[in-house]
Amino acid sequence: MTGSTAASFTADDYRARMERAARTAAEAGLAGLLVAPGPDLVWLTGYTPPAVTERLTLLVLAAGQDPVLVVPALEAPDARKAAGAPALTLRDWTDGKDPYAATAALLDASGRFGISDNAWALHLLALRKAMPGSSYASLTEALPMLRAVKDAAELDLMAAAGAAADATFEEIRNVRFSGRRESEVAADLDRHLRRHGHETVDFTIVASGPNGADPHHEAGDRVIERGDMVVLDFGGLRDGYGSDTSRTVHVGEPTDEERRVHDIVRQAQEAGFRAVRPGAACQDVDRAARAVIAGAGYGEHFIHRTGHGIGVTTHEPPYMIEGEEQPLVPGMCFSVEPGIYLPGQFGVRIEDIVTVTEDGGRRLNTTARELVIVE
Amino acid sequence: MTGSTAASFTADDYRARMERAARTAAEAGLAGLLVAPGPDLVWLTGYTPPAVTERLTLLVLAAGQDPVLVVPALEAPDARKAAGAPALTLRDWTDGKDPYAATAALLDASGRFGISDNAWALHLLALRKAMPGSSYASLTEALPMLRAVKDAAELDLMAAAGAAADATFEEIRNVRFSGRRESEVAADLDRHLRRHGHETVDFTIVASGPNGADPHHEAGDRVIERGDMVVLDFGGLRDGYGSDTSRTVHVGEPTDEERRVHDIVRQAQEAGFRAVRPGAACQDVDRAARAVIAGAGYGEHFIHRTGHGIGVTTHEPPYMIEGEEQPLVPGMCFSVEPGIYLPGQFGVRIEDIVTVTEDGGRRLNTTARELVIVE
Repeated sequence: MTGSTAASFTADDYRARMERAARTAAEAGLAGLLVAPGPDLVWLTGYTPPAVTERLTLLVLAAGQDPVLVVPALEAPDARKAAGAPALTLRDWTDGKDPYAATAALLDASGRFGISDNAWALHLLALRKAMPGSSYASLTEALPMLRAVKDAAELDLMAAAGAAADATFEEIRNVRFSGRRESEVAADLDRHLRRHGHETVDFTIVASGPNGADPHHEAGDRVIERGDMVVLDFGGLRDGYGSDTSRTVHVGEPTDEERRVHDIVRQAQEAGFRAVRPGAACQDVDRAARAVIAGAGYGEHFIHRTGHGIGVTTHEPPYMIEGEEQPLVPGMCFSVEPGIYLPGQFGVRIEDIVTVTEDGGRRLNTTARELVIVE
Repeated sequence: MTGSTAASFTADDYRARMERAARTAAEAGLAGLLVAPGPDLVWLTGYTPPAVTERLTLLVLAAGQDPVLVVPALEAPDARKAAGAPALTLRDWTDGKDPYAATAALLDASGRFGISDNAWALHLLALRKAMPGSSYASLTEALPMLRAVKDAAELDLMAAAGAAADATFEEIRNVRFSGRRESEVAADLDRHLRRHGHETVDFTIVASGPNGADPHHEAGDRVIERGDMVVLDFGGLRDGYGSDTSRTVHVGEPTDEERRVHDIVRQAQEAGFRAVRPGAACQDVDRAARAVIAGAGYGEHFIHRTGHGIGVTTHEPPYMIEGEEQPLVPGMCFSVEPGIYLPGQFGVRIEDIVTVTEDGGRRLNTTARELVIVE
């Protein structure tokens, strides 16, 4: 992912994000944010280290202070090339020096800090040792919505990733399904996603016939047959931003029941989409989709949440799930993906990425949601 | 790396490793070990999850208890396929349940635990919340030598990885260097390592002319010229075990100074190798190599430690560095890689992986350490 977003954003974009993050942290009562390599760091600085190792790389954000990126000396030349580098101060350290003491010197040693979910335990333990009075909360717990609202340039990239996934579906609906293994169709999906600009493919689910009834089935050796429903769920990162779409196709003519179940899921997905508007709660989207499926008598067969956020990763907050009262805000992007899973028979899932607008929702996936017949 | 080591080891091998780890932890005063996905988990169980996410996967080892692997329910089928699975109890958890409470129930809530360096902060913070009286030390701090001593089957794999790296050098010494970019030779190295069985290539350093004076230079756009010294340093994982070797070659005839510097490094590497024997301290290996270089007047130009351990990763304890008093034990594997770096001119590094035997050391790299002339 190194540098993949660098071309898209300026140092000013990153400066604005870092300032907003530091302000949000202060409002949440945190003395600062400690950001490890990974999606948070990419989003805040555009920087991805050459490798994630035991050597500390950490972005330190605190309200009223300039952002500081602590980096191993031998990686400083890489860090200097990051698009966000002009908006921060690099503090490099050489082998044998103590980077935790250097980090502690930047901070209120008795403060409470938000720290990236994926920061290494090694580093957290060493920071706590350097600042025995400090305490920590994971960023997802402390500031779950930190990256949730996308700005205009980010939305352009999200739309481009969605369009590339849609172009992949348009290709895949014309390939042969019957007589081929799920894994072969999955390889087609991977190839098309990459050809349409994805640098990372995170999942290529091809779940045929009874395999479709397991929402976590990926793609296996099963040979797809005429008469199968096939759930396709694929996505990854394109220019650093995520795609994720699902369509369920049928090999040859479907039965009446297959048509009916597919249509219920389509209506549920539509209802979930229509529930999207600023101020609605995340759980309202789940409830709207679930009500359609439950009303049709399939409630017990919709066995997962309705959606998840997406951005510089393909799964992140906010989650469209009962109990999540977080209000929707323009610029949030998430999946709306209800499904029905009939054990031993088949499954259906339909998924679009939706972004919240002032007026409601906008789909970033626009391929046919009707049941597509494949060969 | 998924499953790459599965064919090589049996459930009994993994059972023995887990028992040894639990015993070592108890001897170190720890109430148990908490092992996250990554090299520790691969080494102890053969298991690599399909992805490392916010969903907790954690191996819990405590003396006198059966090993338990806490896994997300949807990954349990993968975990069950791991070669070490028969030697442990799987405890799966479904979305919405609290995996930290389930983990805490297995443990002494006021104990001190060793936790993998790369365990996510998210998980460490949640465990501490579930067990407010618990405390933690990183595994590298608490048990740095946990994976350091290799058994016979592991040594076979280390030797095979070394032989594959050597075969790569034999190919690369015959390719054309002059007129090609460093990055092109690096691509050759990558291809040959993979062709000789590596599933992962971690580094392919090609540092020509003045670039060789920077030990952290990787491979760039510089066009290699006749008259250049070129440092080659490459390795990765083959069947789950690491290779790492360096040779410095010369394009055409070297000058007298280049020959002399190369010969000093060769002698230093030989001296480091000869210092390897059971009971010697790690720092003795560093001192032996460094004494040769210092004695020749180049001490200030040997600017890194003499070596690092290697196994299921390509860089790990023990470190051959001044101050490291850890005694060498038969079965340990590490690099011996002194170098001389002359800013603006050139660099030389020679590196073999060495394993400790009852009698001394055994090199796992055996290509010519004399200065090889390339075209």
